[in-house]
Amino acid sequence: MQLGMVGLGRMGSFMVQRLLRDEHECVVYDANKQNIDELIALGAKGSSSLQDFVSKLARPRAIWLMLPAAITDNVIQELLPLLSTGDVIIDGGNSHYHDDIRRGADLISKGIHYVDVGTSGGVFGLDRGYCLMIGGEKSIVESLYPLFATLAPGAGSTQQSPNRVAATSVVSTAEQGFLHCGTHGAGHFVKMVHNGIEYGLMAAYAEGLNILQNANIGAGTHEIDAETAPLSHPEHYQYGLNLPEIAEVWRRGSVITSWLLDLTADALHADPGLAKYAGRVSDSGEGRWTIMAAIDESVPTPVLSAALYGRFASRDNDEFANKVLSAMRAGFGGHVEKTNS
Amino acid sequence: MQLGMVGLGRMGSFMVQRLLRDEHECVVYDANKQNIDELIALGAKGSSSLQDFVSKLARPRAIWLMLPAAITDNVIQELLPLLSTGDVIIDGGNSHYHDDIRRGADLISKGIHYVDVGTSGGVFGLDRGYCLMIGGEKSIVESLYPLFATLAPGAGSTQQSPNRVAATSVVSTAEQGFLHCGTHGAGHFVKMVHNGIEYGLMAAYAEGLNILQNANIGAGTHEIDAETAPLSHPEHYQYGLNLPEIAEVWRRGSVITSWLLDLTADALHADPGLAKYAGRVSDSGEGRWTIMAAIDESVPTPVLSAALYGRFASRDNDEFANKVLSAMRAGFGGHVEKTNS
Amino acid sequence: MQLGMVGLGRMGSFMVQRLLRDEHECVVYDANKQNIDELIALGAKGSSSLQDFVSKLARPRAIWLMLPAAITDNVIQELLPLLSTGDVIIDGGNSHYHDDIRRGADLISKGIHYVDVGTSGGVFGLDRGYCLMIGGEKSIVESLYPLFATLAPGAGSTQQSPNRVAATSVVSTAEQGFLHCGTHGAGHFVKMVHNGIEYGLMAAYAEGLNILQNANIGAGTHEIDAETAPLSHPEHYQYGLNLPEIAEVWRRGSVITSWLLDLTADALHADPGLAKYAGRVSDSGEGRWTIMAAIDESVPTPVLSAALYGRFASRDNDEFANKVLSAMRAGFGGHVEKTNS
Amino acid sequence: MQLGMVGLGRMGSFMVQRLLRDEHECVVYDANKQNIDELIALGAKGSSSLQDFVSKLARPRAIWLMLPAAITDNVIQELLPLLSTGDVIIDGGNSHYHDDIRRGADLISKGIHYVDVGTSGGVFGLDRGYCLMIGGEKSIVESLYPLFATLAPGAGSTQQSPNRVAATSVVSTAEQGFLHCGTHGAGHFVKMVHNGIEYGLMAAYAEGLNILQNANIGAGTHEIDAETAPLSHPEHYQYGLNLPEIAEVWRRGSVITSWLLDLTADALHADPGLAKYAGRVSDSGEGRWTIMAAIDESVPTPVLSAALYGRFASRDNDEFANKVLSAMRAGFGGHVEKTNS
Repeated sequence: MQLGMVGLGRMGSFMVQRLLRDEHECVVYDANKQNIDELIALGAKGSSSLQDFVSKLARPRAIWLMLPAAITDNVIQELLPLLSTGDVIIDGGNSHYHDDIRRGADLISKGIHYVDVGTSGGVFGLDRGYCLMIGGEKSIVESLYPLFATLAPGAGSTQQSPNRVAATSVVSTAEQGFLHCGTHGAGHFVKMVHNGIEYGLMAAYAEGLNILQNANIGAGTHEIDAETAPLSHPEHYQYGLNLPEIAEVWRRGSVITSWLLDLTADALHADPGLAKYAGRVSDSGEGRWTIMAAIDESVPTPVLSAALYGRFASRDNDEFANKVLSAMRAGFGGHVEKTNS
Repeated sequence: MQLGMVGLGRMGSFMVQRLLRDEHECVVYDANKQNIDELIALGAKGSSSLQDFVSKLARPRAIWLMLPAAITDNVIQELLPLLSTGDVIIDGGNSHYHDDIRRGADLISKGIHYVDVGTSGGVFGLDRGYCLMIGGEKSIVESLYPLFATLAPGAGSTQQSPNRVAATSVVSTAEQGFLHCGTHGAGHFVKMVHNGIEYGLMAAYAEGLNILQNANIGAGTHEIDAETAPLSHPEHYQYGLNLPEIAEVWRRGSVITSWLLDLTADALHADPGLAKYAGRVSDSGEGRWTIMAAIDESVPTPVLSAALYGRFASRDNDEFANKVLSAMRAGFGGHVEKTNS
Repeated sequence: MQLGMVGLGRMGSFMVQRLLRDEHECVVYDANKQNIDELIALGAKGSSSLQDFVSKLARPRAIWLMLPAAITDNVIQELLPLLSTGDVIIDGGNSHYHDDIRRGADLISKGIHYVDVGTSGGVFGLDRGYCLMIGGEKSIVESLYPLFATLAPGAGSTQQSPNRVAATSVVSTAEQGFLHCGTHGAGHFVKMVHNGIEYGLMAAYAEGLNILQNANIGAGTHEIDAETAPLSHPEHYQYGLNLPEIAEVWRRGSVITSWLLDLTADALHADPGLAKYAGRVSDSGEGRWTIMAAIDESVPTPVLSAALYGRFASRDNDEFANKVLSAMRAGFGGHVEKTNS
Repeated sequence: MQLGMVGLGRMGSFMVQRLLRDEHECVVYDANKQNIDELIALGAKGSSSLQDFVSKLARPRAIWLMLPAAITDNVIQELLPLLSTGDVIIDGGNSHYHDDIRRGADLISKGIHYVDVGTSGGVFGLDRGYCLMIGGEKSIVESLYPLFATLAPGAGSTQQSPNRVAATSVVSTAEQGFLHCGTHGAGHFVKMVHNGIEYGLMAAYAEGLNILQNANIGAGTHEIDAETAPLSHPEHYQYGLNLPEIAEVWRRGSVITSWLLDLTADALHADPGLAKYAGRVSDSGEGRWTIMAAIDESVPTPVLSAALYGRFASRDNDEFANKVLSAMRAGFGGHVEKTNS
């Protein structure tokens, strides 16, 4: 079917390419003409302005926005006067689901439908397909199934769950890699939690690998002074472990196999010390929103929070707190800070 | 090659079956005669006592113990007078690596070699193969490679890491699913950390799914009193989400795909409310030892610890602490405990 | 000076009493006539309606609201038509500072001043005095200093900080127990963080006391099965500790002396097992808002969050997450839940 | 009564001085002669060797060791041949309680009694008195009560708990500041948990103050890119707060008053930015042992652990874990590390 795509960064461009491969018709627009031209070369129909873009789409129009969350609202406002009753705006970016709820209600009052799509898959999505978590009106979402079915990995991308094999021969959309999760915002809500989980998974591997990396701590000299906790049994920490091989062996048959582990094993193989990284880890919104939603719901999330805070601390945002601790220690015990650990 | 197996519970029995399938010769012993008979029927050589068992093995003997950690030392002591110089004892159970270090040094002084094998794979190992993390003397471990190669999943069990494809045509043992990690205890050390990571991964999914499960909290009535935190925006929590389908869709193309997610999706499909579980979660040692090792190494593990503590609290071990909090609140604010949340 | 008080619950009533003792003039109003009558008997001037209440106050009026946060906005709307330019509304309740920012801007456009006061001290405030954290316009706040000085504990309530003794003979308002923290919302912001800290302090004591309470765990029988982590050294946990006496001894000369410890020691003395509490711990907003503010600021708060989540879990809000863990364990390892720990 | 003190560092010397003030007789020994001379000048009886030291004490001797934990065992071994049946060795240092259990059993088999004393009070103990947590045989501990009563702060050092006032006119030793907690190791066990709590309390204040310190984050420019989480409401974070005054005001009438807060307020008054500290926070054993004991007991301690891990991370021990996170993010999303936050 026909889709209009606004925003041709890596994500938007890859999605158009995946749709073109499956013979959908794509009209594309981006502020950067070069991004448009590259997709024209692959079979997309280009446009010179939002007005031109809208005019090239058949009604009811399906317009997918793949934009930085900060500018999505502006583009919607620009589009609105150009649209007609029954058109559909799809936000595939990383919007906060609160914004989806607001937009959904606002647009429907103007006769426009709104669909939010949380998209996971990263830079591998072009070939691997995208996992799509979708919110909006049921009939509208269903009208877009042909697009979602192409963008998603498809049922054959992994083994069918044993209980499903037994239960039915019908393959659900979830088994193809896309799901209508609920009303406006439900797609980004589920994607938000997905990312919160992602933070936790990543931190679990990172902490474990850090323990392995320091398993030779007993081999070095250990300072003996009142400011250093003693290591009672240095003989227990004499291992010089090969992390690339350990991550690799875990990929086969272990309980902790995962795609994140695949990526980690490959990165460690390329550079066992990960020397090109400084260890300043960004976070980009969803991890934070997940915690805030959990708190609103009174749901305890110690693991997901700890993962988020680890990123904050990686950027030294714990510095003043640590100074307070040192000041207290100086106060009650006369402790002087050591210059290194 | 030939292997003697002592301990024919599910893990030991499955390993023997996997070895027999690949035409290794297995001599087996267990306190329960029926366990022996079942394996004899599949081609193993049975034995009537430890003495009989040892006498049926060719020197240098390779003896694999697959026993509860608490009795492994006793069986080693029973075996010792029956063994000859150069024989090898392999502990494939869940021993603490401290015990491996002790045993390795002790046995070598008696002319016996000791190998520790951390084994992951659970009830699926018979067909899926076991991930094997191995500690001990290099030459001894290498002499057992034929056994490990059969027990492990093999190189074809997952895709080769891209950086490895590019680098070399040699397939490492890690890529086959087994790895000599280092000297005595290294195998169980790596397995210990593996389980620590496992706890963290599991908790990340569990917390996230709990957020999804409570996403309709705004739909119910919310108590308004001084003891209940207000929910400012009930309109943000009106989603009745389908967890089985969400877990299923995440299995395809998302960043958080994993074997644990596969199992979770299948369990949720069978029973969306997981009603047959009370939520009292056991822990069996490795998660605890991981934290203790991390602390010895001064490595922060907030995520892995939070996962462990969640299990403690699931068994109500936080009860007295919570009573202290209620007593304090009564003390400074006259707060009275509510009977439900 | 003169103050009008609306809301004569325990907090409002105690504050009026403390003001009356110091010969301030108080006009009071409450929906419950009995609350008014009790204060009339102590020297306050009663009123029969909000209109009557406002009419009895001299301009510019100072009106203190001591109300549940949920109804404060409504009462402000009722008051507004009755007020005159230059009047001051003081919110001494537990409002979210976001609401203060909104109200401050809104009221100032109507010629009314707004002051937010975070109040700590609980049921002991009548005699001990209240710690007051204040936000609003500087000149307006300063005009209310006589009231704050009476409500606060005063400079003599604790020892002067040594560095202050050395530096100056001037006693700051903070040393008297009240502080203008900044513009609108600053008072409740500081009070919010105060409560966040309070949660962390409480949890630290509660966790420590729980360790002491279980220090005899080695004396009992310990289950030996694959679902129970082994206790390697039961001889290390043979202590039957007297918690009331331990909490008491810590009150004298230790690094962890505090008012919360005073309350805890007293509660434990009265009831060492705290049997009258079920351990279901409420939270009432500020602890949650503290975490959300920290996340907005990218400040890591693992301790304050853990304290909050402990309360959520005390009310069994971790239940579904725990069921997920048990389902996973059944899935990969065939583990069956134990019916008790 | 008479006491022999070995180890005249700040702690040992102050304790002798406090005993001398109360007219106890002190025989002292230290490897450093100057430390001995200083106490002779204050009325102590010096000694030239351990042999000389022992010979100057009347039987049954009471010998207090105030030494770094690492050398206590050595000094005990040196003392042993010089002692007589019924003599008492008191370890007032920071020994692990496991060592106390071992030593207690070992010494009693040689006719020597052993007492472990956990001591809190820091550099202020000379004037403020020490909080003493004591383990050992009841009759032996009671025979030392005159010494403990002098070293402790005394009953008048703080207000009596209300429930105790009501209950009895007898003042317990806990109310004087010392307590026989139980058998060998109980003193150091209770002191260990005391320090674990201390870590948690300190972190709670530090995290809260860090939130206040960053309350103006909305006033600065906020980067807008895909690697920076957006700040939705910069207008909520425009406060430039005066932390020294806030810490000071909390000292009066608030729920979070404590001695640690007193020290913090004083330190912030002297240097609001705490510029002389780098924020590298040491830990010295007890905090770690507390977590290990809690894990052995299956008691959840998320707050105390988070406090400990914060110290580890303050010394950059989270670095490799953070590099792993950055490597993963590069892997799945092509994310590039930012050079600052």
